Formats: sequence, structure tokens, C-alpha cells
Amino acid sequence: MSTPPRLLVNGQPGDSLPALDRGALYGDGLFETILFVGADAPLWPRHMARLRLGAARLGFALPDEAQLLAAARTAGAELPRAAVRLSVSRGVGERGYAPPRAAQPNWVVSAAPAPVLPADWYARGIRVRCCALRLAAQPALAGIKHANRLEQVLARAEWDDAQIAEGLLRDRAGYVVSATAANLFAVVGGLLVTPALDECGVAGVARAEVLARRDVVVRRLSWEEVMQAEEIFLTSSLRGIVPLRQVDDSVFAPGAAARGLQREWRALGFGDAHEG
Amino acid sequence: MSTPPRLLVNGQPGDSLPALDRGALYGDGLFETILFVGADAPLWPRHMARLRLGAARLGFALPDEAQLLAAARTAGAELPRAAVRLSVSRGVGERGYAPPRAAQPNWVVSAAPAPVLPADWYARGIRVRCCALRLAAQPALAGIKHANRLEQVLARAEWDDAQIAEGLLRDRAGYVVSATAANLFAVVGGLLVTPALDECGVAGVARAEVLARRDVVVRRLSWEEVMQAEEIFLTSSLRGIVPLRQVDDSVFAPGAAARGLQREWRALGFGDAHEG
Repeated sequence: MSTPPRLLVNGQPGDSLPALDRGALYGDGLFETILFVGADAPLWPRHMARLRLGAARLGFALPDEAQLLAAARTAGAELPRAAVRLSVSRGVGERGYAPPRAAQPNWVVSAAPAPVLPADWYARGIRVRCCALRLAAQPALAGIKHANRLEQVLARAEWDDAQIAEGLLRDRAGYVVSATAANLFAVVGGLLVTPALDECGVAGVARAEVLARRDVVVRRLSWEEVMQAEEIFLTSSLRGIVPLRQVDDSVFAPGAAARGLQREWRALGFGDAHEG
Repeated sequence: MSTPPRLLVNGQPGDSLPALDRGALYGDGLFETILFVGADAPLWPRHMARLRLGAARLGFALPDEAQLLAAARTAGAELPRAAVRLSVSRGVGERGYAPPRAAQPNWVVSAAPAPVLPADWYARGIRVRCCALRLAAQPALAGIKHANRLEQVLARAEWDDAQIAEGLLRDRAGYVVSATAANLFAVVGGLLVTPALDECGVAGVARAEVLARRDVVVRRLSWEEVMQAEEIFLTSSLRGIVPLRQVDDSVFAPGAAARGLQREWRALGFGDAHEG
């Protein structure tokens, strides 16, 4: 038997895109990173909901969702836990920024073994840093997972220390928005709080799952509040619920909110994303 | 004799890029749009200076400039006036936002006949509108011509009327920044003024050429000042110096500043970018 392809372009085995695709020209596209456990992606409907929201915002049509799911399963087959990346661009168009009326979206599905993180990260928490880069406020693009990600690239380039698992991002007013590739929750005065994402940041599907399971206050969250939080954790579709134990030099401890959600995450069908 | 290729990838005839190139994944790249008249691009050194600035900001190495120039000339050969697009991405890397240490940039050169605009646009001016989309403030990315261009795509999608040649963009505070694909100059109280681009906008090479030729005040420029300007014109490497005759319902007339620069533009070697 042949190995199934881990890379599909427009649903077919392939490894290239047109050089003048608007994804490459302008980042004119969307993407999702989806955890599959075997053929199942428990958060698939949330990924599709966000993708539809993004496509409506950018104004292009998506491929059929059944096709996307079939391609994702093909790419991830034989991987017990697969990180499937799905990207959809507006396609090739005439020159210039004006979106072509009849572009044909190009879409790519790729799969890799899902990251396996140290068990310690889930039990004791991770160390993170505060990034210097501030996210710009752009309500027209906030929340969706579009392919204009230079802010995240520059923020992630700020450190090169394997002991630092993530970086926290603030907006220009100093409010905490998220990590570079995860959302943030904090327990403040006994209440679970997560930053509002109407001006910047990506509204993660794991964040959406937490919002559906808990009473959460969604509002601006200052750096000082985060520093004084009773507990802080990150959420990510690939990594699940990850508590923080250190932000720069400030020490935190995993708390009951993260522990409870970690248990529910396993029950959702994700199993354990960690070693041992 | 065979027709020279109008599309080159990494200096060779080709029409595709790796599907997982970071240009397509994150808009992690830079581009230039360069007017060639025969084998000459009078603003080539300015394009290269901006490209180097962008590469330093994003933290990746550029291909050799002599190679870029040779490829641009090959792509544009047989076109008397060519619009050459040169894009350079960081290349393929491991998953995630962290820039790979040893990525190999991928670069694409494409050529098309330069746009020919109605002579009337240069003589009497163009009609433009004011866009609803406001540019986000991101000093880390301001000025350079990176490939995160969804703001420009969304702004350009606001209208579909061939009589409207461009759209003016403001920042969130209401200051005028530029057009969607050109820079803006206004004569205010007898002084030539152009918006500061330290928080958003692209610092165009045609703008740089004007700054080198004239005394220009570079500062924040309010919408009200633009509306009361004695004259307004746009600058673009492809289109040159284009006066405005109407902004929404407000009427303007081409003035001496634009006329003088139009003459110098022809003398630079660009000839006439218009019909007749």
C-alpha cells in the first residue's frame, strides 16, 4: 500500500501553487490549524464557522466543506494525532489590489504529526515572555484567521530560547490580547476573563469552546490585571489548555479553572497531547 | 526566436511556488512594482533601497541584486513599457510563526505591459473617493512594501466604478495617509506636504523621488487640510504624477506643483504613461 499524501492542493496530491496566487502576493487568504485524532477533529465545526466568517469578511467563496474534510482526513491518515493545516486563498487574479470578480480559490491541506509537548507543561505550566511588538488595531480584520501574519512572525522572532514556550502580545494601549499562537484566559477576582478581540487578535476555536463551557467575561484586560491574576492559561486548538507558571520574572501556579478544562478537553476526544 | 518568459521563479522560467512557502502561509515577504522603459528602470536604486529596508525589518536575506535586475529585464524584454513585479518571500520553513534560521528565500519576477492611462487623467486629473477602511497603526511594518496587504485589498473592494481611479485612506485618527496604491501630496498654504508614514502606509519610491527634488513638509495631514488644499496629486512608480480633480463631491484643479513634476518625470526617462 502506498503512503497517503500529506500535502494536497485543491484536493489533489500536489506541492505547489501558482506563483501569482493572491495568497502569495498579498496574504489574501485564510487558514485553520486543526487537530485530528484519527479521523476525528472534535472542533471541526468551530474551525469551519471561523473560516466562513473570514471568507465573508474578505469576500470570497469557500470550497465545499465536505471536500475540505475529506482532504484533511486523507492528509492526516496514518497519523494517530495530526496537525492539519488548511489554507484557502482568493486565487489568481488580475494585477492590483482589486479583488477579481471570478477568482477560483486555491486551497492547500497539509498534515504533520501533532506536536507532543512535555507532560510537565500541562501539569506545572509553561514559561512565557512579554513581547515588545504591539498588535495594531484593525477591526476589519480582527478575530478572523487571515494570512496577514507578519505581526506574529515578528513577535515570535523576538526570542530564541526553547525554555520560553510563548510570548504575550499587547495592543498599543497596553491591554493584553493573546499569545502569538494561542488565546489567553485569566482568573481575576474569582472570575474567568478573556480579552475582547474586536480590534486585534485571532478568536481561536479553543477559546470559543471555553466560552461555550464556562461563564467568561470578555473585555479589555490590562497588563497589571494579568500580573495579579489568580491563574492564567492559554488555549490553542493544537495544544489544548496550557497553564502559565511564569511570565518574565513573575511566578504563577496552575489553578482549578485550567485543571477542570484540561479534564474536559480529554473527554472531548483529544486524549493527551503530552508525553508519558 | 522564442518569446522571453514573462514569469520567472528564482531566476528561471517557472510559474509555481511551494505550497508551504511562508509568503502564501503568512504573507511573509516583500514586493516591488517597477516601471521599465526598455531595459531601463529609472527608479531601480530606490526600489532596491526599499527592498533592503524591508528585508532588514523582516530579518531575511535578499537574492543578489544583479540577479534581480537581470531577471526583471528578461521578464520585461519585448515590452516597450513593462510593469515588472518582483516579490521575495522568506521561503519554506518549519511550521509555526518562528522564522526558520536557514530558509532560502523564493523570488518571483513577472512582467506585464505597463498600464496606459487616459491622457486626460494627467492633464485634468482623476476622480477619487474616500475609503471607509482605516489603516491600522503598526510602526514595525510601516513604510516597507511587505506582502500583508489585506487592508489595501478590502479598501479597493469598496468601489467598483471605473470612473473612480483611486481611494484615499485615513488612519484611525482621521489623518490622510495615502491612496490604496499611491502616495499623496497636497499644497497647503503654499507648502508641499505629504503624510508621515511612521505608523502606517507604504513609503513609495515615486514619493522618495519627489522628496529628493522638492522641499516637502512631512507630517500628519488632516482630512480638512486635504479638502482645503490648493492642489492635490498622487505619486506612483507605475503611474507617475497624477493630479486629483475630484475627491467625492469636492472639486480640485491640477496645479503648478504637479505640472512641474510631470515634466521632470518625463525627463527622468519615463516618457509618457498616457495615451495619445
